[in-house]
Amino acid sequence: MEREEALEIVKAHLTEHRYTHTVGVMETAILLAKKYGQNKEKAELAAIFHDYAKFRPKDEMKAILLQQQIAVDMLDYGDELLHAPCGAYLVKQEVGIDDEEVLQAIESHTTGRPNMTMLEKIIFISDYIEPNRIFPGVEEVRQVTFQDIDEGILMSIKNTVTFLMKKNQLVYPGTLATYNEMVQSRQNKRRV
Amino acid sequence: MEREEALEIVKAHLTEHRYTHTVGVMETAILLAKKYGQNKEKAELAAIFHDYAKFRPKDEMKAILLQQQIAVDMLDYGDELLHAPCGAYLVKQEVGIDDEEVLQAIESHTTGRPNMTMLEKIIFISDYIEPNRIFPGVEEVRQVTFQDIDEGILMSIKNTVTFLMKKNQLVYPGTLATYNEMVQSRQNKRRV
Repeated sequence: MEREEALEIVKAHLTEHRYTHTVGVMETAILLAKKYGQNKEKAELAAIFHDYAKFRPKDEMKAILLQQQIAVDMLDYGDELLHAPCGAYLVKQEVGIDDEEVLQAIESHTTGRPNMTMLEKIIFISDYIEPNRIFPGVEEVRQVTFQDIDEGILMSIKNTVTFLMKKNQLVYPGTLATYNEMVQSRQNKRRV
Repeated sequence: MEREEALEIVKAHLTEHRYTHTVGVMETAILLAKKYGQNKEKAELAAIFHDYAKFRPKDEMKAILLQQQIAVDMLDYGDELLHAPCGAYLVKQEVGIDDEEVLQAIESHTTGRPNMTMLEKIIFISDYIEPNRIFPGVEEVRQVTFQDIDEGILMSIKNTVTFLMKKNQLVYPGTLATYNEMVQSRQNKRRV
C-alpha cells in the first residue's frame, strides 16, 4: 500500500492531534528502520496504522478481544492498552493488511512483549520518542535510541513504570516481562 | 517459644549487623501487631526468624528450593530473594516452628505476595522500616505505615521497583503482582 493511501485511510479514524502524532511515528520509524537495517515499507505501514483503533468505543474493543480471544489478559489492566491488539485485528479485517510482522508490531506497540522483533522494537520506541512527544527525559531517550535501541526501550519502560506507579495505576505484567527479558539479554551480552 | 530463646537461636546464624536489624524488625513488628490488632507472639516469632537463612550458601538454598519445589520461579530473579522461602523451610525443619501463618510471613517477607495476610504485611513492612534502616524516604514510609499499612507497603514496593530499575536489575513478577493487587484493592475501597 502506498504511503498516501495509507495515511488517507487512517486519517479518518483519528483526531487531528493523533494524526500529527502518527506522522511523527512514521517519520521516526523510517529513520530507525534505516539505522537498524529493517524493511522501510513495513516500518512505515506499521507506524501509520499503529493507532488505528485508538478512538473505537471501549465496549467495542472489549467485545472484540473477548470474541476473538486476543490479549484477554490485558482487559484487567486499563482501557488504554486495548487499542493495540484491537488495532492489529481491525487493520487486518477492515484494511486488509495481512503481513504478520506488521500486525505484531501494531499489537505490541503499547505494552511491549518479551523477545520483540526489531520491527516491533522500532514501532514501540517510535511511539514514545516521535518529535511531537514533549515530556521530561524524552530527548535523552531519543538520543540513546539512535545509538542503542534496546537501551532506549529499557529507558522508556522504566520511565513508564515509574510514572504509572507514582499515580498508583496498574502496571501490565507483560511490560515487566519485557523489561526483565531485555535486562537479562543485556546481562548476557555483557558477559560474552 | 520465648523471645530470649528464639533470639539466642537466630543470633548464631546472623552477622552482628543483621542481628541488630532483626531486633529492629521484631520491635517494629510488635508495635504494628498492636496497632493492627494482630497476635503479638506470632509477629515476634516471624520477625525474629525472618532472616534465618540469610547467610546460607547460595548453592544450598538453590538446592533446597529445587528439591522441595518451593518458590522455584524465584530462581531466575537473583540470589537475594532465596533466603525468604528457604528460611521458612529451614525454621520448620531445624527449629521446629510449624505455625503456618508465621512460616508464610517469613516466606513472603522479601517479595511480597498478592493478598497477604495482616501478619505477612507486618513482617514485610517491618523489614523495610525498622529503626536501623536509613535511606532517602524511609521516614515517610514509617509514618504512613502507622496510619495505613497498605499505603506504606505500596510506597515501599514503588521505591524498591524504581531502585531496581535504576540499576538495571531484574524485578520479580510476584512483586509487581503484589503491587497490582494492592492498587486494585485500594481502587475498590475508594469506590465503595
